Amino acid sequence: MIKLYDNYVFISQEGGESGERLYSKKFREKSVVDVSGLRIGEGLVVAAGPCSVENEAMILDIARSVKAAGADMIRGGAFKPRTSPYSFQGLAEKGIEYLVEAREETGLPIVTEIMNPEYYRYFDRVDMLQVGSRNAQNFDLLRFLGKQKKPVLLKNGMGNTAREWLETAEYILSGGNGNVVLCYRGVRGIENSTRFTMNVGSIIYAKSETHLPICADPSHASGRRDFVESMALASVAAGADMLEIEVHNDPDNALSDSEQQIRPVDLKRIIEKARALKDLLSHEI
Amino acid sequence: MIKLYDNYVFISQEGGESGERLYSKKFREKSVVDVSGLRIGEGLVVAAGPCSVENEAMILDIARSVKAAGADMIRGGAFKPRTSPYSFQGLAEKGIEYLVEAREETGLPIVTEIMNPEYYRYFDRVDMLQVGSRNAQNFDLLRFLGKQKKPVLLKNGMGNTAREWLETAEYILSGGNGNVVLCYRGVRGIENSTRFTMNVGSIIYAKSETHLPICADPSHASGRRDFVESMALASVAAGADMLEIEVHNDPDNALSDSEQQIRPVDLKRIIEKARALKDLLSHEI
Amino acid sequence: MIKLYDNYVFISQEGGESGERLYSKKFREKSVVDVSGLRIGEGLVVAAGPCSVENEAMILDIARSVKAAGADMIRGGAFKPRTSPYSFQGLAEKGIEYLVEAREETGLPIVTEIMNPEYYRYFDRVDMLQVGSRNAQNFDLLRFLGKQKKPVLLKNGMGNTAREWLETAEYILSGGNGNVVLCYRGVRGIENSTRFTMNVGSIIYAKSETHLPICADPSHASGRRDFVESMALASVAAGADMLEIEVHNDPDNALSDSEQQIRPVDLKRIIEKARALKDLLSHEI
Amino acid sequence: MIKLYDNYVFISQEGGESGERLYSKKFREKSVVDVSGLRIGEGLVVAAGPCSVENEAMILDIARSVKAAGADMIRGGAFKPRTSPYSFQGLAEKGIEYLVEAREETGLPIVTEIMNPEYYRYFDRVDMLQVGSRNAQNFDLLRFLGKQKKPVLLKNGMGNTAREWLETAEYILSGGNGNVVLCYRGVRGIENSTRFTMNVGSIIYAKSETHLPICADPSHASGRRDFVESMALASVAAGADMLEIEVHNDPDNALSDSEQQIRPVDLKRIIEKARALKDLLSHEI
Repeated sequence: MIKLYDNYVFISQEGGESGERLYSKKFREKSVVDVSGLRIGEGLVVAAGPCSVENEAMILDIARSVKAAGADMIRGGAFKPRTSPYSFQGLAEKGIEYLVEAREETGLPIVTEIMNPEYYRYFDRVDMLQVGSRNAQNFDLLRFLGKQKKPVLLKNGMGNTAREWLETAEYILSGGNGNVVLCYRGVRGIENSTRFTMNVGSIIYAKSETHLPICADPSHASGRRDFVESMALASVAAGADMLEIEVHNDPDNALSDSEQQIRPVDLKRIIEKARALKDLLSHEI
Repeated sequence: MIKLYDNYVFISQEGGESGERLYSKKFREKSVVDVSGLRIGEGLVVAAGPCSVENEAMILDIARSVKAAGADMIRGGAFKPRTSPYSFQGLAEKGIEYLVEAREETGLPIVTEIMNPEYYRYFDRVDMLQVGSRNAQNFDLLRFLGKQKKPVLLKNGMGNTAREWLETAEYILSGGNGNVVLCYRGVRGIENSTRFTMNVGSIIYAKSETHLPICADPSHASGRRDFVESMALASVAAGADMLEIEVHNDPDNALSDSEQQIRPVDLKRIIEKARALKDLLSHEI
Repeated sequence: MIKLYDNYVFISQEGGESGERLYSKKFREKSVVDVSGLRIGEGLVVAAGPCSVENEAMILDIARSVKAAGADMIRGGAFKPRTSPYSFQGLAEKGIEYLVEAREETGLPIVTEIMNPEYYRYFDRVDMLQVGSRNAQNFDLLRFLGKQKKPVLLKNGMGNTAREWLETAEYILSGGNGNVVLCYRGVRGIENSTRFTMNVGSIIYAKSETHLPICADPSHASGRRDFVESMALASVAAGADMLEIEVHNDPDNALSDSEQQIRPVDLKRIIEKARALKDLLSHEI
Repeated sequence: MIKLYDNYVFISQEGGESGERLYSKKFREKSVVDVSGLRIGEGLVVAAGPCSVENEAMILDIARSVKAAGADMIRGGAFKPRTSPYSFQGLAEKGIEYLVEAREETGLPIVTEIMNPEYYRYFDRVDMLQVGSRNAQNFDLLRFLGKQKKPVLLKNGMGNTAREWLETAEYILSGGNGNVVLCYRGVRGIENSTRFTMNVGSIIYAKSETHLPICADPSHASGRRDFVESMALASVAAGADMLEIEVHNDPDNALSDSEQQIRPVDLKRIIEKARALKDLLSHEI
């Protein structure tokens, strides 16, 4: 028997290859995921912060700035999955400590990436766990997260279809953890003028198939600072319930993703426009 | 020397492989293309109508409906490029005649696809010429259109990058015809839940590079009736100046593209939302 | 009634959306296309020559070299479809004249691209007409070629699926011209270390579906001189009946596609290996 | 200082973002990886066996068959990464036990997939560890394998470029384990007639950049039994040193990947042709 209550979902014993999925709209129209009091799936939630936590002063400074700009949550990478083994790999547990300080200073919940169940002990005080594109089909990690209660921000794999992305959520849901927010960060495509291909069709498809809230990441999808605003607005128009945006106080000298991080002043304008847009669409529907 | 005045652009004799492009923002911030009095590039213009003109009564009926729904222009295919030689290939010149009647009845300008300079004589009374995705790099056709004065709605090739799409416009501009509107209809990609991949990054890139107005075609990009609205809104949020939407009074029995044509009642709602959205964004900027 | 005899195929009046295709293996196991006595579909045929005919001396020189290297046919572009309107567009009819001289000198048949029925008069003395990737779905051009008798070398569109590629052949076959050789030149993909994506699966799929001979173009697929040999061999192993390879006597100073043209000395080695490979596979089967 | 001896590679302390890679041809022309006496990188090595180990009798039966057909190594999945959480997930440690029995019976080394360092204890007696496409950028797993001595068969991520694939090998090499064989299993692309896109350009690029041996997996790339032979031959022609092929004694009733597993009788023919081809190419070079 499948039961869904509150935000938790329990797997039926009858689940099967061709059975109903727990993420399906057949079970409910829309879920709201609660992250330390912040309700994702109602209005528009914005998480903002640097690609990587680089040091204590930097993350505290950015945290204050993004709060002032209107963000609801702080993002920052501590354990970093980098294409090259020689790139900056993050501050690890030290980075998480600094994020916790940033939360204490601002009162905003924090989200950061987990790459490995082995380090879960460091993520105790984190409000939301992010699964990155490179681990999107790391099924042992997903199964592990399915046994926790902490909310998960689950990115799509850069080579996955939208349907495969939904199936990754099922790994977490079927373990008993219904607190999943799907985050679209673009896929590989034929276009070379942006870092990834931002197929809004995938957001629209996901919205049509699942009750889970959908987040969009315009920073990775574009890979260009000057495209983040339009891509954020397009994502909200496509139905996104949340945005995750990379912000840095000195983007040109960032230790990672320098090209795509915006400044706090730009974040403020984007949040205002995106909220007005979300508001307009919800009134009209 | 390069001179641009009114909407016409004349090619310099110094044009070269690595030279400035006439489509570039270096020459002007924004162009407005005049189509029989309708100004594309100001506010949001909507062209709507069936994939194919199937008969006289049908196009007149749809023309009245899309006008009532708020559309500014009527679209309809007469010469049809079909993947299979055995599919319905359109009514050809007869189809254009019926479109002209639809214009006389409604007062709305008409846009229809031209596949071949040889048949240009039939397009005399058409207000705007469409170049489809399959002829997007038919350079002889583009050169021919560059020598005419009629406005052109130029779709991107389904396997082209955004930069290649801009280069196709250059073929028309460099011939002396500056009346080009670029229309993004999606590209091939890795996703299989939609007909094509709607990469809003390409619209954003095009807006950042060219002064030409940008149109979006959410019908072909999605291939699904229920996705057209969200895809239209996402395109406008990404910066589109125009939408081209397939509308049919009896979609299930359409002779082509049955899956993606919407009904007039849905068009009305989409136009209202899309205009409110365009309005919001233009006020906020 | 559908009748196939010699190499000519006549269309049935009962052709339909879901009907049998004339390219299908249901009608015959394998076709051989005769190009001025050269039989494509038996053994391995190699066409070689420059991307563009640049002048008389150059094409004569290359023609002699590729003949000496073992090529069966001379290729060279006279009417050139270039992404940019400012790139070298070919010598047009003059280029064809020089190609005809090259044939007279070497005795090898010539193949060159046609972009437009309007210029067909210049192609009278050409042995085989090439349709390029950018005109692969220019259906009016395909219909026109379907009414001629001359053999056609039909490239796939860079954004088309293998099935769509086969449908383009059907436009020619259904007009009455059965002399079609399909040429795979790669598609757009996610890889950026080569110019295009050389999906041998498309060659294999085409071989499994059609009786028409299959050619491969390793020059455009790779875009790199040093990759042409391995890509040519992989194509033959996948089942290609013909190779089309770009060769230049001074690649670094070529007026187009400089990066991917090989020298005659390399062509000799590639032909020898490719023929030995074809031989091996035909004996073993 | 970077030192390479035998098959082991030790990382320099001066490694850096833009530094030389240990996989680079700058360090050596070609590596041979020793797997329990089998030398990968010399001649053509073939690993064959079922997608999943389904039970003891089945794997023993297939092991005998693939040995008789000429295979050098046995493959079989025990821990299975499946897109859906409800699909058969493998026999886990029991599956590995049966594989070890198969090795004892045939004398052939075994290769099986590891998804998680946590279960490494079960892989003690395995000869070669496979990293699958879905964990190709699971960097913690790669770092862990870099600290072991066991040879690794490293598949490319289905959404990765060839350069990113090479970087994943660097994670293992830079940890001190030089026993890496790269395995190309296709990528996502625009083609829908095969399961994945088999871009031989990626194999050719990898061969041109790295001294590591290259394997190809024609089973996953094609997803179709009848395409495996041609795809295997094309891969060898492109330069592959090894093939990994899925073989089942009753493919239609396989618990996973039913469509793409071939029968032992077909394997025999493929191995004979592929070895003759490899032989031909090595003599000619």
